[in-house]
Amino acid sequence: MPTPTGVGTEELRRANLRAILQTVHTHGPTTRAALTKQLGLNRSTIGALTVELQSLALVSEETAAVGGRSGRPSHLVVPREDNVVVAVDVGVDRISVALVGLGGEVFERRHRPHQRGEHDVDHVVDSVAQMIGDVLGGAPGRRCLGVGVAVPGAVRAGDGLVRFAPNLGWVDAPFTDLLSKRLGKPVSTGNDANLGALAEHVRGAAVGYSDVVYLSASVGIGGGFLMGGRPLTGSSGYAGEVGHMQVDSGGPVCRCGAFGCWETKIGENVLLRRAGRLAGGGPPAVAEVIAAAQGGEVRAAEAVAEVAEWCGIGIRVIVNLFNPEVVVLGGSLAQIWRAAEDRVNDALSRSTMMSPREDVVIRAAALHDDSPLIGAAELAFAPVLDHPQAVPHAV
Amino acid sequence: MPTPTGVGTEELRRANLRAILQTVHTHGPTTRAALTKQLGLNRSTIGALTVELQSLALVSEETAAVGGRSGRPSHLVVPREDNVVVAVDVGVDRISVALVGLGGEVFERRHRPHQRGEHDVDHVVDSVAQMIGDVLGGAPGRRCLGVGVAVPGAVRAGDGLVRFAPNLGWVDAPFTDLLSKRLGKPVSTGNDANLGALAEHVRGAAVGYSDVVYLSASVGIGGGFLMGGRPLTGSSGYAGEVGHMQVDSGGPVCRCGAFGCWETKIGENVLLRRAGRLAGGGPPAVAEVIAAAQGGEVRAAEAVAEVAEWCGIGIRVIVNLFNPEVVVLGGSLAQIWRAAEDRVNDALSRSTMMSPREDVVIRAAALHDDSPLIGAAELAFAPVLDHPQAVPHAV
Repeated sequence: MPTPTGVGTEELRRANLRAILQTVHTHGPTTRAALTKQLGLNRSTIGALTVELQSLALVSEETAAVGGRSGRPSHLVVPREDNVVVAVDVGVDRISVALVGLGGEVFERRHRPHQRGEHDVDHVVDSVAQMIGDVLGGAPGRRCLGVGVAVPGAVRAGDGLVRFAPNLGWVDAPFTDLLSKRLGKPVSTGNDANLGALAEHVRGAAVGYSDVVYLSASVGIGGGFLMGGRPLTGSSGYAGEVGHMQVDSGGPVCRCGAFGCWETKIGENVLLRRAGRLAGGGPPAVAEVIAAAQGGEVRAAEAVAEVAEWCGIGIRVIVNLFNPEVVVLGGSLAQIWRAAEDRVNDALSRSTMMSPREDVVIRAAALHDDSPLIGAAELAFAPVLDHPQAVPHAV
Repeated sequence: MPTPTGVGTEELRRANLRAILQTVHTHGPTTRAALTKQLGLNRSTIGALTVELQSLALVSEETAAVGGRSGRPSHLVVPREDNVVVAVDVGVDRISVALVGLGGEVFERRHRPHQRGEHDVDHVVDSVAQMIGDVLGGAPGRRCLGVGVAVPGAVRAGDGLVRFAPNLGWVDAPFTDLLSKRLGKPVSTGNDANLGALAEHVRGAAVGYSDVVYLSASVGIGGGFLMGGRPLTGSSGYAGEVGHMQVDSGGPVCRCGAFGCWETKIGENVLLRRAGRLAGGGPPAVAEVIAAAQGGEVRAAEAVAEVAEWCGIGIRVIVNLFNPEVVVLGGSLAQIWRAAEDRVNDALSRSTMMSPREDVVIRAAALHDDSPLIGAAELAFAPVLDHPQAVPHAV
């Protein structure tokens, strides 16, 4: 049990500021009346807190036509979109950068392919810094609250060191530190699947759920978890390594050194090779195999069925361990699910341990391939959402 | 993101009462001076809160000789042990009942064997009610705050319905409800491994850790998790079904209906059969096999090595998924760990996914076979620790 700590009135004020800002950031413009009701505080307290958030230039107030029973016009508290963050998703085959406003709107978006030869950390820092310069240059007069980055690997909590990102070839890469020094501003880095889970929870297929599993497959497989409404990070930020669950002791050697990892049974390239295609084609190649399977090509159909079976087996393990309300599938897992839902479900249900299975909803990601990017934006907003009074004044 | 809620001053007071009571319950008698420092509240606030806890008969104050710098004697806040709970552990082969005081001391303890023919729910309710009557009858003048029960199965959060306890043969067993009606008082029921994790966290091998995995093997395998200091329950309380992870697709059919579950590779009876012994001998039989292995019996040694190997494989999956600070092993898992630590470690480390492995501590349970029982006591104390002002007045 953690040592309990007393709560003082200054923290109380901060908690209430936080509650208002989080509400309008997540749900959009909200009337004072609704905030009063929702937060269980009285009108004058909400008024005073809103004035403080206005003075911090985080919200504005508009007079709305929607009067309450009293007939008085209600004040609408609106997140100020001139507060922005930069969100970055460093994928294996492309880098995406977006400018995202408080409230969640995406204003600018740039993509740049980068191939296996361009994964050197310094090279990626160069590319990302240049792309960030571009999107910020096109947005004068906006206050940049931070930079959030999604990477496909294990990120150390605290300093953002990328411990292990096998598909980029990174081990102990000081990416976060290098980018932060280059930009002259703080950078927060997180695992792409954890950020995907966060985004789907705040704005996607897992809204309203507290116990969320997000699984995304491409070359590797990422897992992101929210349990009881909070991210499951583990002690150092490495939780969620779902790709290296041993599911098949007779299976092939994995690049991690063990045998029969889940990744060796359901990865994008596993499907492609099994269907007689070349590895490396990404989502379009997966879509081609699925179309061929649906068109009657036996080898493609067998490949899809086999991968779907292993998808179900792995999801079953995870559902039994975590008892989530919802499992959100991204990347090629979403493609397989849409194409072969029955097959996945058969394997998933092949057990009498039905209690955790009964209530779980399984669905494809609502933000599609943007989940990690949107999650990176939320990561960058987090310090201000947590402590609005500490917002930087510089524009 | 859960809807944020405002915090009022009444909740503040309750949070501070809770903090003091939890501190003395967990850490024992504590001076007012230490509480002042630890909780970050001033002396007069601590004084007023302590007086309120005294009037609720939850703590007493003693004058201690340990003066501060001022030379004044310090007031020692002491948990009142005449507040008790009844803790029950319904195992597969025996029922244990104990009387536990606020502060954690075990006053009374009864055991009763019950065999496979006596697992009928009504029969178990009879036995437990009788044993509770016995321990409470021997403790007049004590205030019973509640009854907590550990069962080896999936328990529905909210009403305590035992959804599935395969080794007792229970499916949707209204055990909690029946026992509560019989006793005329509220009963809280939890999964034995979850409660074991809680107990090891509060008073055992996982004190001071926030990210804890507790794994215990007997006939089946239970998993209990604390992540970020909070129990991982999943959406309905079924999280932690580690026994039915598929680790070996070529493995035997499990009683759950799937293939190659972890339980079919490391359960107590798997070891016994593999060593040429009869199943069903429990911990003493496991100890005999280990002794024989150490004495040079080839078949026993092979059985221990094989099970140790599978223990390591399963623990690796769990460490990669949860990134815990500590893994606490109970039951025959603790026996195997003590006998063949190197072998378990070999399998555990057979992967380059080393980030989560680096920092994790693996150790045997400090409370031995009592972990679930002590955890059941903590479950029974939880409502009063959470809301001291709601303590029942009846003695």
